[in-house]
Amino acid sequence: MKLSELRKHQRRALGFLKKARLPITAHEAKNIEVADFGLNDVQHIGLELVVYENNDRYCAKELVLFPGQICPEHRHPPRDAGNPGKRETFRCRWGKVFLYVEGEPVRRPKGKVPADKKPYFTVWHEIILKPGDQYTLAPNTLHWFQSGPQGAVVSEFSSSSDDESDIFTDPNIMRIPVIDQ
Amino acid sequence: MKLSELRKHQRRALGFLKKARLPITAHEAKNIEVADFGLNDVQHIGLELVVYENNDRYCAKELVLFPGQICPEHRHPPRDAGNPGKRETFRCRWGKVFLYVEGEPVRRPKGKVPADKKPYFTVWHEIILKPGDQYTLAPNTLHWFQSGPQGAVVSEFSSSSDDESDIFTDPNIMRIPVIDQ
Repeated sequence: MKLSELRKHQRRALGFLKKARLPITAHEAKNIEVADFGLNDVQHIGLELVVYENNDRYCAKELVLFPGQICPEHRHPPRDAGNPGKRETFRCRWGKVFLYVEGEPVRRPKGKVPADKKPYFTVWHEIILKPGDQYTLAPNTLHWFQSGPQGAVVSEFSSSSDDESDIFTDPNIMRIPVIDQ
Repeated sequence: MKLSELRKHQRRALGFLKKARLPITAHEAKNIEVADFGLNDVQHIGLELVVYENNDRYCAKELVLFPGQICPEHRHPPRDAGNPGKRETFRCRWGKVFLYVEGEPVRRPKGKVPADKKPYFTVWHEIILKPGDQYTLAPNTLHWFQSGPQGAVVSEFSSSSDDESDIFTDPNIMRIPVIDQ
């Protein structure tokens, strides 16, 4: 991703944080992470993140989803004997989120995925999060989410975060931080 | 605390959450915790809390401070061999907070404590948190905080929370949840 493109997505993400009335510092704004998951199609599959704190015990982030943007299916595997994998809570602050987890598939999902990516979305139990709603995921369970047509801002509270260990259903995905390349 | 008084403080706290544009559910609103620390003087020394999630790994809360309200000095001691005590991050979302921790005392503190309680406030290293600012406390370190004249709303991200184990400097304090009594 070119620096100019990164800055464009960061500015757009900042706009959503402003709509949600969630103030961030200038330093945080300059360092908004834009995850394209190595697919180079941020518009459809991507995520914007402000990491407030990530230490060996807990993590807190703000997630921004542009309208219809998808965070692709993945799970957080066990890391060692004392760590069963990342546990996380999503709390919708603004907009609407369609969250999909393991369980009974919904008949008519609100979420829409690109046709060529369908095989990489295997869980369809639907949870709809509106502002003030939240959902806590058990470690090592598959999940993905997409924002509604207005976009969304979601607070994530979790155990320690280590994105590099995430396992994605789509083998083409690489979860590496996007920086000027 | 009488139920009528609890409800009054809950309504007031909800007003601050609305000012901060932090939506909570009706169920959460009815269950806002009002901590009076056993001092029966919520106006001056007290805290209002919405606990979003508290599990054996992490915890996330919204804290409301009425104008000038004080969360009294305390620390989170080690709990067992594997737990050095609660670690926590305060992120100001709205208003202003004067946070006091161990370290070089400030010469002219912004925080003001009632004269008869002064002996129970022993750390005076001042950190001022405005919206978007945050501070992470090491476990088992003394701290207290007070909101500015407008009140404040603060997100707390932390390791697992167990209020009952908190150690307060003021021996008159009992940290028990306030319910209809």
